[in-house]
Amino acid sequence: MKKHNFGAGPCVLPQEVFKRAAAAILNFNDLDLSLLEISHRSADFVAVMKKAQHLVRALLGVPEGYHILFLQGGASLQFTMAPYNLMRVGGRAAYLDTGSWSSKAIREAELLGQVEVAASSKDRNYSYIPKAYRMPSDVDYLHFTSNNTIFGTQFKAFPQAEVPVACDMSSDIFSREIRVSDFDLIYAGAQKNTGPAGTTLIIVKEGILGKTGRKIPTYLDYQTHIDRDSLFNTPPVFSVYASMLTLQWLKENGGVGWIEGINAEKAALLYDEIDRNPLFEGLAARADRSTMNATFVLKDKSRAKTFDDMWRAAGIHGLKGHRSVGGYRASLYNALSIESVQTLVNVMGELETKG
Amino acid sequence: MKKHNFGAGPCVLPQEVFKRAAAAILNFNDLDLSLLEISHRSADFVAVMKKAQHLVRALLGVPEGYHILFLQGGASLQFTMAPYNLMRVGGRAAYLDTGSWSSKAIREAELLGQVEVAASSKDRNYSYIPKAYRMPSDVDYLHFTSNNTIFGTQFKAFPQAEVPVACDMSSDIFSREIRVSDFDLIYAGAQKNTGPAGTTLIIVKEGILGKTGRKIPTYLDYQTHIDRDSLFNTPPVFSVYASMLTLQWLKENGGVGWIEGINAEKAALLYDEIDRNPLFEGLAARADRSTMNATFVLKDKSRAKTFDDMWRAAGIHGLKGHRSVGGYRASLYNALSIESVQTLVNVMGELETKG
Repeated sequence: MKKHNFGAGPCVLPQEVFKRAAAAILNFNDLDLSLLEISHRSADFVAVMKKAQHLVRALLGVPEGYHILFLQGGASLQFTMAPYNLMRVGGRAAYLDTGSWSSKAIREAELLGQVEVAASSKDRNYSYIPKAYRMPSDVDYLHFTSNNTIFGTQFKAFPQAEVPVACDMSSDIFSREIRVSDFDLIYAGAQKNTGPAGTTLIIVKEGILGKTGRKIPTYLDYQTHIDRDSLFNTPPVFSVYASMLTLQWLKENGGVGWIEGINAEKAALLYDEIDRNPLFEGLAARADRSTMNATFVLKDKSRAKTFDDMWRAAGIHGLKGHRSVGGYRASLYNALSIESVQTLVNVMGELETKG
Repeated sequence: MKKHNFGAGPCVLPQEVFKRAAAAILNFNDLDLSLLEISHRSADFVAVMKKAQHLVRALLGVPEGYHILFLQGGASLQFTMAPYNLMRVGGRAAYLDTGSWSSKAIREAELLGQVEVAASSKDRNYSYIPKAYRMPSDVDYLHFTSNNTIFGTQFKAFPQAEVPVACDMSSDIFSREIRVSDFDLIYAGAQKNTGPAGTTLIIVKEGILGKTGRKIPTYLDYQTHIDRDSLFNTPPVFSVYASMLTLQWLKENGGVGWIEGINAEKAALLYDEIDRNPLFEGLAARADRSTMNATFVLKDKSRAKTFDDMWRAAGIHGLKGHRSVGGYRASLYNALSIESVQTLVNVMGELETKG
């Protein structure tokens, strides 16, 4: 049965990626060897890494002067690596607090220096994106989270700053066009639009490193990985390969501009139903609604059992909201088809007509 | 054509693992979903993690009071995590220096405290394992590398100490029986006998943590991952699954005692030929020869082209030595069959009869 996977991550990827990744595990590049058993220093794998980096550069229009890395440890390790690499000894940084992931990033930065929370939406359970910031000018960098998976909010315009800008883009990178030159550090756990879990994409500007006066453990130092072109130690070979396939799928089909249009259509289709259907209510402020994660509730919770049975029967998977918010969360990542969204909207409509 | 993969890592794994991993990417547990698109918090994946941990416990006889984790970042990140978790502020640790990996571990520990090199074999390019140690009693822990992939040496008896013992077992874990209670911390990048690249196995004793007086970044703190049973953040789903398959293969076939016998046979077959054949010479001290990585050279380097053509024609892959040593390195990991070793030995004999 065809499944409609609305899971928040790890999440749906293109079927073509699954097929090609499975084939490479059995016989990679006609070497009569599995992708899993070749050296990461072999010409065959070095070509995979280079191609993955090249695809990131092409898809996002990454200008000269930025390095592209595929590391390990997820955004959670980046929460530490960002301040390690950007915060001076005795320094301070500005953070925007727009949800659980921002809060976790703040806690890690506080271990290394002082954090100025320049804006927060905690007062209304992170249901909106703050628009006014108290931005100190003497901070080492500004950090924010572009899309908040748990609460379903997303920056539509990015904050500007005179200082280096660091952004956790884990859940919406490659979903919409961005101007990379507005950022100094972008990082993203792969497991949404980039590929499967197990690798973390880093885009870092030349010239912002080496200024902290801090002794940085070798693996945590971006410069280590820049100097070895992302092959300092054994990389997560499979995750990098499957990410390369995912980015290739995106590029061959039309790139970020193409998918941005489809993502807007998918989001409009679902949010229109949430707003139209009297049984449902959206959780995020309308202006800040995420195109990647739509959060909503049933106004009458006694209908939950019926609704849950209906969407499961329709082949829908992964619609339950995060425990800290409740209700429902429909994640609309790049590889989710508009047909899957239509299936969900149909079920929502059928629940209404059931009376 | 059947390949004989002597690569040093990532390296040969059981064919059955490749087949089952490829199938799971297309349809996992008959869910009509790929392994790559399910949530790491789903019951299906939590069961994979638990099974992988259980297999480690069963295969190595891990006693109660030890935690088993599958993290990211490879041994290279462990070089930092071990001192972060075990070295007191202002403390010192003893390290045995038996090769490139030991040296890298020492450099990371030196960033956090003082390192006493209790023994080193650097004087003869790490071609042997030191037997006498100057072990200070006032160190926080002792660290060593059980097997040195680059130089082909291996501890046959493990050093004893009154202090906690930390061991990088990346390249020989699961190849021979060990007594886990002799160690307080064992870590191993997966990409030899545990599974594919992308995850790192940690076995850590209860009660040794929380004593450093150090603020530890959350991801780098073993306690973080212990408290969340190795699911603090999104784990490297595929690598953990394929590791689980690899360990299952080992257990179903007879376990560590069974493979230790086969590994001894494979090593004896190859080392006997290195010693018998007048064209070749082993690089490591005989008493310290690794059962996992056999390093050797052609005495007459002018025969190299002929030998290289011959082994390549026989389907042998990955025999070139590390650049810091030169010559040849035959890695004999668990999944390499005795037939593959026999094929190499035959080629070595044929080179001799060619005169």
